[in-house]
Amino acid sequence: MNDEIEKEQEFEEWLNLLDENKFSVLKQEMNEEYPANIAEFFEEVPKKKRLFLFRLLTKDNAAETFSFMASDVQEDIVNSITDNEVRSIVDELSMDDAVDFLGEMPANLISKILKNTSDDKRKIINQFLNYPEDSAGSLMTIEFVQFHENSTVAKAMEQIRKTGVDKETIYSCYVVDKSRVLVGMVSLRTIILSGDDTLVSDIMEDDVIYVQTLDDQEEVAALFKKYNLIALPVVDNEKRLVGIITVDDIVDVIEEETTEDIEKMSALVPSDDEYLKTGVGKLAKNRIIWLLVLMISGTFSSAIISGYQSVLESSVILASFIPILMDTGGNAGSQASTLIIRGMAVGEIGLKDIFLVIWKEIRVGVICGITLAAVNFLRLMIFSHATTFVNLTVSLSICVTVILSKAIGCVLPMGAKKLKIDPAIMAGPLITTIVDSVSLIVFFNFAKVFVLRN
Amino acid sequence: MNDEIEKEQEFEEWLNLLDENKFSVLKQEMNEEYPANIAEFFEEVPKKKRLFLFRLLTKDNAAETFSFMASDVQEDIVNSITDNEVRSIVDELSMDDAVDFLGEMPANLISKILKNTSDDKRKIINQFLNYPEDSAGSLMTIEFVQFHENSTVAKAMEQIRKTGVDKETIYSCYVVDKSRVLVGMVSLRTIILSGDDTLVSDIMEDDVIYVQTLDDQEEVAALFKKYNLIALPVVDNEKRLVGIITVDDIVDVIEEETTEDIEKMSALVPSDDEYLKTGVGKLAKNRIIWLLVLMISGTFSSAIISGYQSVLESSVILASFIPILMDTGGNAGSQASTLIIRGMAVGEIGLKDIFLVIWKEIRVGVICGITLAAVNFLRLMIFSHATTFVNLTVSLSICVTVILSKAIGCVLPMGAKKLKIDPAIMAGPLITTIVDSVSLIVFFNFAKVFVLRN
Repeated sequence: MNDEIEKEQEFEEWLNLLDENKFSVLKQEMNEEYPANIAEFFEEVPKKKRLFLFRLLTKDNAAETFSFMASDVQEDIVNSITDNEVRSIVDELSMDDAVDFLGEMPANLISKILKNTSDDKRKIINQFLNYPEDSAGSLMTIEFVQFHENSTVAKAMEQIRKTGVDKETIYSCYVVDKSRVLVGMVSLRTIILSGDDTLVSDIMEDDVIYVQTLDDQEEVAALFKKYNLIALPVVDNEKRLVGIITVDDIVDVIEEETTEDIEKMSALVPSDDEYLKTGVGKLAKNRIIWLLVLMISGTFSSAIISGYQSVLESSVILASFIPILMDTGGNAGSQASTLIIRGMAVGEIGLKDIFLVIWKEIRVGVICGITLAAVNFLRLMIFSHATTFVNLTVSLSICVTVILSKAIGCVLPMGAKKLKIDPAIMAGPLITTIVDSVSLIVFFNFAKVFVLRN
Repeated sequence: MNDEIEKEQEFEEWLNLLDENKFSVLKQEMNEEYPANIAEFFEEVPKKKRLFLFRLLTKDNAAETFSFMASDVQEDIVNSITDNEVRSIVDELSMDDAVDFLGEMPANLISKILKNTSDDKRKIINQFLNYPEDSAGSLMTIEFVQFHENSTVAKAMEQIRKTGVDKETIYSCYVVDKSRVLVGMVSLRTIILSGDDTLVSDIMEDDVIYVQTLDDQEEVAALFKKYNLIALPVVDNEKRLVGIITVDDIVDVIEEETTEDIEKMSALVPSDDEYLKTGVGKLAKNRIIWLLVLMISGTFSSAIISGYQSVLESSVILASFIPILMDTGGNAGSQASTLIIRGMAVGEIGLKDIFLVIWKEIRVGVICGITLAAVNFLRLMIFSHATTFVNLTVSLSICVTVILSKAIGCVLPMGAKKLKIDPAIMAGPLITTIVDSVSLIVFFNFAKVFVLRN
């Protein structure tokens, strides 16, 4: 499907229509496109024409397109439209989209927006804005379908027909008792396949999977993955149903959480901002802290080398093998730590597996270490001008370093998890620094034995 | 929700019931649990009791639990059950689960399974097994709801009630013409909210988003994310509808694809296997190739240092700064490359942005480089015994190295993408090696100017 190319052509055509003032054609064509694509088009439109273009959209399309827009375009538009238009957009947005959008706006805009919202909605929005950023509460929507225990299938269907159009999903419906406590879940599929007089409580699933408003979004995502859910109910402390989370929002959470892990592993302060829209100062700030920490901790390596200065002086050629040794150790270690961090993140590896993992990594380390050392020794004997003792020192050091790096690479993230520190933060950036010191100590001690004595 | 602890308690209780031969209680309790949890329980049951336990499950539960099992448990069970039981499991499995499962089994089991499958199903399974591993075809299921163009809402509902129970989803239905060409999509929500006599073709969305059987799963996942879909139709070359993909399978794809990217960035050969279940030999094999390549390419660093041996001999202390310099460069470079690789993967950065990105990285590099160099110079002047010229050499080298590393870190992955090489493979492991050489050259040239001449 040449989706991208077709879209680019369409956007170009629209830009031409805009330039040629053919607004009625443009209006029609735009309103037939998917809101996600219209939102993308807005990024290519010159700023001063965005407002005009936005007003060409039908009311329904306007709100939905708005929810797909990047936050700087949203800001741009809210800044320039009238109060009435703000009200109609916010009223059309589903609650979770409205909260998402408000979370990104500067304070002066938020007050403009809230001023133009009905009392009821404002109260709910304020409550939502109080949930912690990565909690189930901040992800949920309050537009869900709920039945009472004693409802029949016919009544349920009538209710869906009447109110369903405003709900985020009508495919998972929830059953509550008279104090609004969640007692069951029933899918539209089950409802449709049941007779009109059946009681909802007879066909509902009563062992419902649910989360609480303050649960972390990572846990929420894990439940979706495990049970193949399309929606998940959210309850308060008294198990009263307060909202639902739908799978489309979870897809974003999973991506956000992995991006965060990847960034931490590469010594970056994680950030939700889009790269191209983040200023140079902020980008630098997110990187400089770890670079400083790691540079300072690199002092250990320097101290180790200085400590063995006499060894180096007697054979300067040894210095030329420092990079190869450090890099091989670093790579071997980060291979192990990456697999362990990822394995823990997706739930394949638990803390109870630690001895199994260490034992496995040591054996993997022995195989990798011996192979690398052998290849390296052969390579040096053929191509290098160094003595056999130097070659032996380098190769043995590689072997021992690889084994130790693998062991450190698995102990470090699991230890971090045990201490309730984020494994990705702890093990990702630090592994190289730690392995550096270890490999240098190994190297110079072998050098003392083989090179200095011979 | 203390899901995990509750589950562990339940599993322990079940194991006790099993030991005490209280099978009828166990049977009842197990059959009331979610299949995903029953499947997890099987992992904790001793191998020789698994078959017996499996036979306690009702027919429906058996097939669904089976689809959630790890492939080694599946293999175990298929190996020991009768041909009739194999047939009933495979018949109950939905097509995409059946194909997934067969993809993991050894050849002798596949023939046992296919022998016990009806002709029709075998034909379809074989066709599915022919789709490339990461294609839309391999993800899709053929259990979907389709209507003819001239169907009415009443007829559609009747059809859903009659056949819906066997379909993967009934919430997205598809409309085809008489040659089975996909002409539209209609959601169950729309059907329910429309009058009985309405023609399906009047309420359907006719600009359907679809993929072809051979499209890559990454593209498929991107469409789900962009349009917030819960299902996506798959068509053949003639745009005839052949299957659908549902969002629960996409959640797995997203996780698989990111794990793959993370592994590549850490110099691992990507693998779908669970860590704890992968043998030591296979783990070593997935790592050793990159370790060898990177070790051999480390020869450049050695050669550079050897080339400047005279500089080193005149001031051995310089060697002690090699690790700090290489690591800082490596970290700075991989920070940049990670952001760019991830940005391209989630579609935030395109090739057209290359000059923007380079310009941004250079400025970020200048800020980071100057800060690091200044901190380092101060630190060395206070704590180090080296001469001011050595300290100056190290600090200037850090500054220049950081800037160059940032630039290399963004050019490398984008260049790889341009050349249609996977950015994660190209830039992840190689960045350190390339930055090493660059930083050493910078370092020794500054040393020549400042240290040798003074």
